Amino acid sequence: MLKPLGDRVIIELVESEEKTASGIVLPDSAKEKPQEGKVVAAGTGRVLDNGEKVALEVAEGDRIIFSKYAGTEVKYEGNEYLILRESDILAIVG
Amino acid sequence: MLKPLGDRVIIELVESEEKTASGIVLPDSAKEKPQEGKVVAAGTGRVLDNGEKVALEVAEGDRIIFSKYAGTEVKYEGNEYLILRESDILAIVG
Amino acid sequence: MLKPLGDRVIIELVESEEKTASGIVLPDSAKEKPQEGKVVAAGTGRVLDNGEKVALEVAEGDRIIFSKYAGTEVKYEGNEYLILRESDILAIVG
Amino acid sequence: MLKPLGDRVIIELVESEEKTASGIVLPDSAKEKPQEGKVVAAGTGRVLDNGEKVALEVAEGDRIIFSKYAGTEVKYEGNEYLILRESDILAIVG
Amino acid sequence: MLKPLGDRVIIELVESEEKTASGIVLPDSAKEKPQEGKVVAAGTGRVLDNGEKVALEVAEGDRIIFSKYAGTEVKYEGNEYLILRESDILAIVG
Amino acid sequence: MLKPLGDRVIIELVESEEKTASGIVLPDSAKEKPQEGKVVAAGTGRVLDNGEKVALEVAEGDRIIFSKYAGTEVKYEGNEYLILRESDILAIVG
Amino acid sequence: MLKPLGDRVIIELVESEEKTASGIVLPDSAKEKPQEGKVVAAGTGRVLDNGEKVALEVAEGDRIIFSKYAGTEVKYEGNEYLILRESDILAIVG
Repeated sequence: MLKPLGDRVIIELVESEEKTASGIVLPDSAKEKPQEGKVVAAGTGRVLDNGEKVALEVAEGDRIIFSKYAGTEVKYEGNEYLILRESDILAIVG
Repeated sequence: MLKPLGDRVIIELVESEEKTASGIVLPDSAKEKPQEGKVVAAGTGRVLDNGEKVALEVAEGDRIIFSKYAGTEVKYEGNEYLILRESDILAIVG
Repeated sequence: MLKPLGDRVIIELVESEEKTASGIVLPDSAKEKPQEGKVVAAGTGRVLDNGEKVALEVAEGDRIIFSKYAGTEVKYEGNEYLILRESDILAIVG
Repeated sequence: MLKPLGDRVIIELVESEEKTASGIVLPDSAKEKPQEGKVVAAGTGRVLDNGEKVALEVAEGDRIIFSKYAGTEVKYEGNEYLILRESDILAIVG
Repeated sequence: MLKPLGDRVIIELVESEEKTASGIVLPDSAKEKPQEGKVVAAGTGRVLDNGEKVALEVAEGDRIIFSKYAGTEVKYEGNEYLILRESDILAIVG
Repeated sequence: MLKPLGDRVIIELVESEEKTASGIVLPDSAKEKPQEGKVVAAGTGRVLDNGEKVALEVAEGDRIIFSKYAGTEVKYEGNEYLILRESDILAIVG
Repeated sequence: MLKPLGDRVIIELVESEEKTASGIVLPDSAKEKPQEGKVVAAGTGRVLDNGEKVALEVAEGDRIIFSKYAGTEVKYEGNEYLILRESDILAIVG
């Protein structure tokens, strides 16, 4: 598995099945880039200037909303992931 | 529901029904982007460099004025929200 | 009323009635943007990195000089205000 | 009078009467922008990140050299002033 | 050997043998720049603002994923290395 | 005299008499901008974020090498000086 | 001699005698800018925000690898040096 460093989080994208008002399922190119993901692994936390480590607010399994265009795409064992900093996570879907 | 992280706040836009001097209600495209919203959920606070957590000054239900163009638009269960950092909030309407 | 957050201050512009050397009152478009205002409401202060809150140096009723182009214009109940950070205030007219 | 905020200083420009080598007094447009001023009022000091206030090194009456193009020009009761941050002051003429 | 300073890490690139869906091994120019490496040497850590030294999260021998375009390429005794800051390391492959 | 503020230093330029390999003294326009100076006056030091004042490493009379294009040129009582921040001083010639 | 200030280091470039695969020694213009140097003098250290001084990790005599294009070239008593900040040093060759 991949173990993210510091305040980083690894997520899988969650594709929302989107229909138009008329009920037609949109093909991939006509959809906006998804902004929802599921946390697959979370780093050990962020080190403050005083040496203290602050645990992340998100944990494995959380569904999250993140900033468009944030993070780095990574392919690992055939799957695609996105590695984000916690500061790119906007909200937890709970 | 959506639970914002850190110093983030989720708001619903408040559309002000705007009439021109002559009493005509303006169509959507002729109005300025609204800058008023209602807080739907507030994060747990901002972590300072010394590890202390500072609670937010705004709370659920507050009506606020925010900086134009700030924040990220998010669609969730058919509704549209804006996720802001507290520093993008200019004033509470009280 | 509007209650500004943190180190923000809400001001009303003070239009100085400006005459040219020959005594002619200048029409609006020929005047420079005013830089003088009256504080209508002041935030509760700025939070330092050590968690301490520093009170603002300006208070309601102060007349101030501020940086050109600073702040955000806001319309509220028919009046126009400018919301500034205290750091955009240059001096108090006293 | 004008009372500058924080680490700000209000100065009056000091026009140096400049002669060319041949003794001709230069007209205004042929002179460089002056960089010398007299402190008319000084702010109460700069607040550090630990909440301590550091007094300014300059005081009313000091003649100073300042960075070209620094500061904001302000007109007040018919006089012209320049409002600078202390960090824009290079040296005291003593 | 090369001994990296502070929060720097020296890595060897790990070329992933990549085949297309049809089983053809891609020539070098048709592959994306690899983002995987093996840590060859790690610095002694990062010095915080309070003088404390924080040990790195990665150690010699770790396989890592790093940010595209990060780091400086260095040739030493005929081998090619990449010198990164730890903050450019996204995750450990474990 | 001029008394520099904070971490500032006033220097006089030191023109190095430069000869070409063939022994010809170069006219002014063919020489590079000098990077060597003599400290004429040094500020009282830099204030850290904790309020402590750190004395400068250079003192009056030191010959120094400084960054090209750093500092502000100032004319005072017919002489030309350069006012630098200590961070623009690269080395002491000792 | 030159005595570098703070976290600065003075180095002499180390020209690596580079041959092409066919054994031909490359003329100067065909070689890459060298990235290797020998420390000739090291500053007394970097002052942290809490006033503590952190000694440098490199010392006189160390051979180092540094970032391309970093530092300032200085000529002193006929020799050429490069003055770097320690943060521009990537690794010690040991």
